[in-house]
Amino acid sequence: MSKRKSWYAILIGSGRFGARLAGKLSNEDHSVVVIDKNESKFENLPLEYTGFTIQGDATDIEVLKAAKVQKADLFLALTDDDNTNFFVSQVAKVIFHVPHVISRVYDPANLPLFHEYKIETITPVLLALSTANRMLEKIAEEEK
Amino acid sequence: MSKRKSWYAILIGSGRFGARLAGKLSNEDHSVVVIDKNESKFENLPLEYTGFTIQGDATDIEVLKAAKVQKADLFLALTDDDNTNFFVSQVAKVIFHVPHVISRVYDPANLPLFHEYKIETITPVLLALSTANRMLEKIAEEEK
Repeated sequence: MSKRKSWYAILIGSGRFGARLAGKLSNEDHSVVVIDKNESKFENLPLEYTGFTIQGDATDIEVLKAAKVQKADLFLALTDDDNTNFFVSQVAKVIFHVPHVISRVYDPANLPLFHEYKIETITPVLLALSTANRMLEKIAEEEK
Repeated sequence: MSKRKSWYAILIGSGRFGARLAGKLSNEDHSVVVIDKNESKFENLPLEYTGFTIQGDATDIEVLKAAKVQKADLFLALTDDDNTNFFVSQVAKVIFHVPHVISRVYDPANLPLFHEYKIETITPVLLALSTANRMLEKIAEEEK
């Protein structure tokens, strides 16, 4: 990967997804803060992670301020709760004007709401379905 | 999609992923059985789903037999528990010789085990990470 600008990135949720992405960003010399309500979730962070962690509820604006959200280049809402992801993404985008906001969407039924508010989304279940479809197409091809 | 052979497919787990895939397969005129421990999960099945449902624990071989696993062309283990997915996939593959066995893997740390036993896998969190990486690369490109 070519050298790029160092970002200040805030990630909400230190589950398997958030923690791995935090490790990758940290490994690429970005400044990273991970926020999670549950301190034990920080155990998911890989050894390569050299950023900060904040134990707290990201739907509390004081917690976001403590993470200096107003300075963030990138904000990723990656909890397994779509209401939380939607709320914190909107706060990051509308109140704190973070230039790049990306949210995980757990239940595809919630996608229209995120799209309506122009929040970029990642929906793992839809990605998994596409992959399953490709695998099944391949099986069907082999049977022809 | 071109006309293809009708499969007999058994899906374990009627969560968002399993239920949507079951609907799609059913819609393509495959014969589908969905098994879930929790009957309320069948509410995830879309209206288009015309297959069968069996409420039961798929790690109980009698439940798999009731689903006629020995006749299945395709077996998909899609619960959110990797131990369950691994166990039922192995049973389908080794005991019942199902030709195509695909398992969801929740925690990427468990992938080597599935690979060792040559079970095909879908790992939503890794798909989500790839997508996140592509989105971040695009942001980095735009900033150049």
